[in-house]
Amino acid sequence: MEKMRANVFRGKNDIRVEEVERPRAGVGEAVIRVTLTTICGTDLHILRGEYPVRPGLVIGHEPVGVIEELGPGVTGYSVGERVLVGAITPCGQCRACLSGHLSQCGHGEGYEATGGWRFGNTIDGAQAEYLRVPYAQANLARIPDELTDEQVELLADIASTGFSGAESAGVKIGDTVVVYAQGTIGLCATAGAKLMGAGLVVGVDGDSNRLSVARRMGADVVLDYRECDPVAEVLKLTGGGADVAIEALGAQETFENSLRSLRPGGTLSSLGVYSGKLQIPYDAFAAGLGDHRIVTTLCPGGKERMRRLMEVVRRGRVDLTPLITHTFSLEEIGKGYEVFGGRTEGVLKVAVKP
Amino acid sequence: MEKMRANVFRGKNDIRVEEVERPRAGVGEAVIRVTLTTICGTDLHILRGEYPVRPGLVIGHEPVGVIEELGPGVTGYSVGERVLVGAITPCGQCRACLSGHLSQCGHGEGYEATGGWRFGNTIDGAQAEYLRVPYAQANLARIPDELTDEQVELLADIASTGFSGAESAGVKIGDTVVVYAQGTIGLCATAGAKLMGAGLVVGVDGDSNRLSVARRMGADVVLDYRECDPVAEVLKLTGGGADVAIEALGAQETFENSLRSLRPGGTLSSLGVYSGKLQIPYDAFAAGLGDHRIVTTLCPGGKERMRRLMEVVRRGRVDLTPLITHTFSLEEIGKGYEVFGGRTEGVLKVAVKP
Amino acid sequence: MEKMRANVFRGKNDIRVEEVERPRAGVGEAVIRVTLTTICGTDLHILRGEYPVRPGLVIGHEPVGVIEELGPGVTGYSVGERVLVGAITPCGQCRACLSGHLSQCGHGEGYEATGGWRFGNTIDGAQAEYLRVPYAQANLARIPDELTDEQVELLADIASTGFSGAESAGVKIGDTVVVYAQGTIGLCATAGAKLMGAGLVVGVDGDSNRLSVARRMGADVVLDYRECDPVAEVLKLTGGGADVAIEALGAQETFENSLRSLRPGGTLSSLGVYSGKLQIPYDAFAAGLGDHRIVTTLCPGGKERMRRLMEVVRRGRVDLTPLITHTFSLEEIGKGYEVFGGRTEGVLKVAVKP
Amino acid sequence: MEKMRANVFRGKNDIRVEEVERPRAGVGEAVIRVTLTTICGTDLHILRGEYPVRPGLVIGHEPVGVIEELGPGVTGYSVGERVLVGAITPCGQCRACLSGHLSQCGHGEGYEATGGWRFGNTIDGAQAEYLRVPYAQANLARIPDELTDEQVELLADIASTGFSGAESAGVKIGDTVVVYAQGTIGLCATAGAKLMGAGLVVGVDGDSNRLSVARRMGADVVLDYRECDPVAEVLKLTGGGADVAIEALGAQETFENSLRSLRPGGTLSSLGVYSGKLQIPYDAFAAGLGDHRIVTTLCPGGKERMRRLMEVVRRGRVDLTPLITHTFSLEEIGKGYEVFGGRTEGVLKVAVKP
Repeated sequence: MEKMRANVFRGKNDIRVEEVERPRAGVGEAVIRVTLTTICGTDLHILRGEYPVRPGLVIGHEPVGVIEELGPGVTGYSVGERVLVGAITPCGQCRACLSGHLSQCGHGEGYEATGGWRFGNTIDGAQAEYLRVPYAQANLARIPDELTDEQVELLADIASTGFSGAESAGVKIGDTVVVYAQGTIGLCATAGAKLMGAGLVVGVDGDSNRLSVARRMGADVVLDYRECDPVAEVLKLTGGGADVAIEALGAQETFENSLRSLRPGGTLSSLGVYSGKLQIPYDAFAAGLGDHRIVTTLCPGGKERMRRLMEVVRRGRVDLTPLITHTFSLEEIGKGYEVFGGRTEGVLKVAVKP
Repeated sequence: MEKMRANVFRGKNDIRVEEVERPRAGVGEAVIRVTLTTICGTDLHILRGEYPVRPGLVIGHEPVGVIEELGPGVTGYSVGERVLVGAITPCGQCRACLSGHLSQCGHGEGYEATGGWRFGNTIDGAQAEYLRVPYAQANLARIPDELTDEQVELLADIASTGFSGAESAGVKIGDTVVVYAQGTIGLCATAGAKLMGAGLVVGVDGDSNRLSVARRMGADVVLDYRECDPVAEVLKLTGGGADVAIEALGAQETFENSLRSLRPGGTLSSLGVYSGKLQIPYDAFAAGLGDHRIVTTLCPGGKERMRRLMEVVRRGRVDLTPLITHTFSLEEIGKGYEVFGGRTEGVLKVAVKP
Repeated sequence: MEKMRANVFRGKNDIRVEEVERPRAGVGEAVIRVTLTTICGTDLHILRGEYPVRPGLVIGHEPVGVIEELGPGVTGYSVGERVLVGAITPCGQCRACLSGHLSQCGHGEGYEATGGWRFGNTIDGAQAEYLRVPYAQANLARIPDELTDEQVELLADIASTGFSGAESAGVKIGDTVVVYAQGTIGLCATAGAKLMGAGLVVGVDGDSNRLSVARRMGADVVLDYRECDPVAEVLKLTGGGADVAIEALGAQETFENSLRSLRPGGTLSSLGVYSGKLQIPYDAFAAGLGDHRIVTTLCPGGKERMRRLMEVVRRGRVDLTPLITHTFSLEEIGKGYEVFGGRTEGVLKVAVKP
Repeated sequence: MEKMRANVFRGKNDIRVEEVERPRAGVGEAVIRVTLTTICGTDLHILRGEYPVRPGLVIGHEPVGVIEELGPGVTGYSVGERVLVGAITPCGQCRACLSGHLSQCGHGEGYEATGGWRFGNTIDGAQAEYLRVPYAQANLARIPDELTDEQVELLADIASTGFSGAESAGVKIGDTVVVYAQGTIGLCATAGAKLMGAGLVVGVDGDSNRLSVARRMGADVVLDYRECDPVAEVLKLTGGGADVAIEALGAQETFENSLRSLRPGGTLSSLGVYSGKLQIPYDAFAAGLGDHRIVTTLCPGGKERMRRLMEVVRRGRVDLTPLITHTFSLEEIGKGYEVFGGRTEGVLKVAVKP
């Protein structure tokens, strides 16, 4: 039985690069040789025991690689092709998928609690030399020759999610958009709002480095919440409230600030993952009086989504490579977790080369 | 100076039918002789001092009447025509209106806190013999001859709001919809969901009479929360969650039940007016993981909205008259407030004939 | 090798019920024993040589049946379950399907000329004792016990297409809708418009029987084009033009009448299949001046679509059984083609029982 | 009675700069002193007698100016403010406007044949020293101080129309868009597609100069139809068809090419004004089989639209000044018509300074 190296979750605060069994492709599946992947904030939650996965699981969910093996029933692909696979792997054939809710894929008649997120969650993930891809027919997106792994890497999750923050809100030409928190998802939401034709994009954070990257990603105005009341500033800049506020942190304060930053009839697009109860203050929400909408979005997946996002990068509409600030080998992935978890060295996103 | 009889708010728990000055039509305005109006739940909030308006104000905001006078600049109408006027009176010419957010009309460049709700709120209302209508060109909707006052009365507010609960949620053919609370707005939301082609409409309440009216308005299944766990029932009936949940009460419990009744990717349409903080439980919301949407809607207005709703009634799609359970003369309106406020005698909606 | 009886296209004007090989289920496929199917207008085009298919093909594409065999990789189903299968069988995993265009399924990276229509077109069809279903995971829709085969039969194609005429047009509460031609698709479009909350539904045809069925399916007003100018009548009834016109025949005259019946900004929903060139008269189209939309729709498919439509029937929103005017056994299917092709005996839709 | 200079249509091929009566503001109206305007292609049609207007009419419909006078009922503005007024002047209060179809404003209950286009069509236009603006409350859009007249001039019509070509088509992130004809409207459609996040924008024309400006406005690829078959090229570049094709000329050939360039389910956005009959070839349209949409758009208007477009310019998303290739004084406007009509000197758009 062939072996490979992989980053395995062994328990709280215990992940190890180990020798594990190399996966084989079953019916409808593929195996890819991973050429680039990343560490995601969710992986930190797993490491810290805040998000439960089973011990022994290979983690990671942002894979770029080369097709190594194709299982029975997968057609139209060849071994050796470079592919991007989304963090979410929809089957395309269940009730959720056929309704267009690919990220809520339940494969079967009903819905699963975790939607279509499987890599490094319910099945082995991408921080490994090889990765088994379920529903391969729906999830292998060929990478155009002119694009590097680094250029497409973040499209698997962070950028797909960030852009969808703007898409789910329905950003229109001339809209004013404020994005609360400029971590990598927030930075991609900022880029997404500009990409869709927003007239004014405001980025809010309390970290000077991130605010300066925010400008580079498309923010017209940046607000440092250590120096001003961002809600008051947004109301002033927009003449009464933003059309869209995007929450990209997952905290009560940013959620509430987002809501208070909206004009009547405005949309709060919530990308953050909250813990505990979230309060909607009546005076801000004024449910039924303010005509507000709150939309939430889980990272959309599927090869067509990946193809579209690669097109945007290929045409130079957006460049995500500045967000990859560090790269480690798979063997040194532990150092990557340290830097990423410690938020030191101006780290934004850590890439991993198996 | 001519006088008229009107129901005037004098202070907390103090409203009186009095002789007041009869209004005249200014530029762009009209005066109608009110032939039918109602008492709304909001009027009770005003009476009880829970919603502040200035003493001396004539209250009421659901007017049916006959054009008595047309101010300069109002064209295409004649004195004597029967008209329905929405509770919300958009100007059609401000930023909100020109964006399609008629109910958030701010008339001017910015937005007003109260949106376009003026009658019995910021200007004299409909519980009177005569009513001055601002922006008359945008708000006088002719009543087809074959429709009675009673048939169109509730379209001004309750039914427009209730239907919009289903419309804002984007109910589609075959959707499953649950409506929490079967007061008059909830009953109209129930009717609206059926009107749009929902496959299964579930009405929830704890009042047998209302549940029986719910069936008549279109609910396929009714659930009495005194006898079952409505969330568990909805999850069972829908095989995993409703496509749409409509909240029509304005309470933490119904809001939370609505959220918990949704399938992943489902929509909560919130019509209730909440007091205090509203909590979104993380496990139900799972913001960013559940792809949920929360939409809120203030009663849409304008003559075109009124015209469309009258068409639906005219063609027999829906009959709202069963919701008017009591009618009082203007002089006896105090009794109407008693019955309505006390929720006695199986009261649903109280009409008033000036 | 097992055999079965099937209706086989042998050449122009030559179809025969013959003994053919009984199909077996391959990977991802299922075989159903057909319990009810129909003859469709497209089958007549095939018979007459107007739509080319290969000789030897079993025709028919509206199948109701019982699962007989499940191929490898199909999960969650059992032999013996009653299922409805749409006329279009999307794979769910190609570019078109993952974009939500299930009816344009190309299975593979590109698009196929025929979209996802395969039964009786590119693979053997439903006028047979057994039917092989491709992409079974995406296409087997369980039939609720309380529904008969006859009640769901037309949902596979005719009703799904007819309803989608209203859905693609985005019919809203209070819209005025005119449907040109009241054949079975037009009748279902009429039912669909009412189902979505149209305020006024006008059905146009030149056959008294069909106009009387149109009333039964939801038309508020019917117009016989032999007795009036339907465009002039529609303009009068709607006060300047319908919000939506649905073309359900596929002819220059009905297309043009549909366009001329619209208000500025109205939508023409075209369901007919035209032959030859179609002319858009400039004075009616006024492209760029009239803000019109023209939408076309191929029958949507997939098990979720079928499930939703069955829900609507189950709840009594619509009853399609009056459209099945004749039923023949498979052996007597030739008589069915005669009656259906001859438009005699008040025929609307012919069902076939294998 | 005060006089002013204005460009007056006297008859076919006869326009003259003359002394005419200076307009005054009636109820709900304003008068602006025009500081910049343009000659539009439609003005050429008028001059050549191809579009009928009454002799004696001042023509022109793209006005930038300074408020000179405000009529009764116009509030929130001051004399001396710089404003942009759209070519279309919606009232905001009729059926069309209240339905969100501002460009089809009929002011009154029904619809007018010309929609909301009044300047230089049914009332005196902008090629004059002063201009009377109807429904001023809905149509005066303040110009931010930092923007010049030249920067906002084209937003009144050409750019609003061009962008709306992309907006009406619903361009999404990663879409492929082809724009047929790169006149000023096509160039703005090209810019609009890029502004909304299209992945690949293809510009087609037969004029090298325009193709080079197309690149500057956002086209990733330009195709010269004198050197290639643009449809074949588009099918190749997009792997089977564009998501969106925008027609910006108004000719049978470009319309047909647009249709043939689409993928199944794609959208044709038609901006051109056609003369004579337009043919939809069956093999391209395949109505009912191709799931295509055809949308048409008349220039959207109203002050909120103007405000949004000015925001986009203010934030540097798009620069339209390269499209103004010539400027003439009002007295020399005849020369402007010559250059513009003759398509000499690389002319794109001619500005006029009264």
